Amino acid sequence: MTDPRISVISERLKEVNRVIAVSSGKGGVGKSLVASTLALTLAKKGFKVGLFDLDFTSPSTHTILGIRGIQPKEDKGIVPPSVHGLKYMSIVYYSGEEATPLRGLDVSNALIELLAITRWSELDFLVLDMPPGIGDATLDLVRLIEKIEFLIVTTPSRLAFETVRKLAGLLKELGVPVVGVVENMKMNLSKTIQQQTRKLDLAYLGAIPYDTKVEQAIGNVNKLLNTVLADKAKNLATKIVSKLCINKP
Amino acid sequence: MTDPRISVISERLKEVNRVIAVSSGKGGVGKSLVASTLALTLAKKGFKVGLFDLDFTSPSTHTILGIRGIQPKEDKGIVPPSVHGLKYMSIVYYSGEEATPLRGLDVSNALIELLAITRWSELDFLVLDMPPGIGDATLDLVRLIEKIEFLIVTTPSRLAFETVRKLAGLLKELGVPVVGVVENMKMNLSKTIQQQTRKLDLAYLGAIPYDTKVEQAIGNVNKLLNTVLADKAKNLATKIVSKLCINKP
Repeated sequence: MTDPRISVISERLKEVNRVIAVSSGKGGVGKSLVASTLALTLAKKGFKVGLFDLDFTSPSTHTILGIRGIQPKEDKGIVPPSVHGLKYMSIVYYSGEEATPLRGLDVSNALIELLAITRWSELDFLVLDMPPGIGDATLDLVRLIEKIEFLIVTTPSRLAFETVRKLAGLLKELGVPVVGVVENMKMNLSKTIQQQTRKLDLAYLGAIPYDTKVEQAIGNVNKLLNTVLADKAKNLATKIVSKLCINKP
Repeated sequence: MTDPRISVISERLKEVNRVIAVSSGKGGVGKSLVASTLALTLAKKGFKVGLFDLDFTSPSTHTILGIRGIQPKEDKGIVPPSVHGLKYMSIVYYSGEEATPLRGLDVSNALIELLAITRWSELDFLVLDMPPGIGDATLDLVRLIEKIEFLIVTTPSRLAFETVRKLAGLLKELGVPVVGVVENMKMNLSKTIQQQTRKLDLAYLGAIPYDTKVEQAIGNVNKLLNTVLADKAKNLATKIVSKLCINKP
């Protein structure tokens, strides 16, 4: 493929230090909530942070963050608006909220287009809310974003973790770095996911207990930052940042 | 498209009375568990039932039903094996368990191929475990299976229900019948989903309370049939069957 937009993407992400792709093997594990809270937490620590919702299957970070009526600005590309201390961009600006789904090639084109036109300028972290699973879109994004690193979210469920196994296998095959695995919506003290994660040669970054307050906090960032999820996101942010120090002597 | 396999599909499903596509707006709402339990329950009621796992993003009914080492038989097509009183077929037989994901066109081809080669013979109900969301695969299946009816699974979460809204909108646009909506993993007495479902002009088929026993029952059909999920699946089956009587005077 000789799409000229692809070389534009590298140029657009030149001033972005790290790209953290928050991902999952399947939907419904809390990926978007973890991505949003992690981005907010990194911003609170004083980093320059972007949040980019690329989950075309069900974009939801705008709902989680209560973003309404804010549009990106056009200026030699698209400049993401600042919301809650983050630079924010979503595929929802492109696809809208309609029922009409994007067909395969349209998804690929929409992702390339969005990456090619968005002007992030200087960022310490760009957090991506990825499409779930190991479909075309995930493969496209791995191909398009050279400095991508994955953060994998799972639940304690066996069905969820089996999809993590596949995702981890694919990333290993493609030589893509994985920061580690987060166990979300944990309800007991089982060590199964921790052990299984280590068997995959991946770092276990910790557990986030199930918290009924999170559902009530959707759309309200102040409430969201007072949940157990936000509390655990602080540890997660510390681990991600310290990994930066190790990798960059 | 003049793919000759498409006319073969109608022929293959000629002796199938109703095709119930268990679907969701997003992953992680328990779609596969509901599909599996519903199929088992209908079979226990004495109906001839097939279960067809078409969720190429993360096929899991074989794990839920504890199916191992059973393969479909070749005989002028593929004859699904009988497992736990069901005729069972899964895309997993085709794609295997490897990490390598299917690309868009491959997914479409795999779905057409599977539908065209599988010999269900006479069935009262064919339950489909659908791919989540409103992507290409869902559109393909609506186009390929004339008598498809949707059963939509959601959780009480606002994020899950917003994707139901999109799915329902798409199905309305396409003129596809919807049996109704099931609210899974319910943890309180909120009537929000019930009200929102009615606003969409869809039938609310009931709630399934969250039950920690379900996770332990994965892979063991006897345990699965002793969960609250299975208990509620009986009501669900009754509603689906009675709808059959209304529609067929």
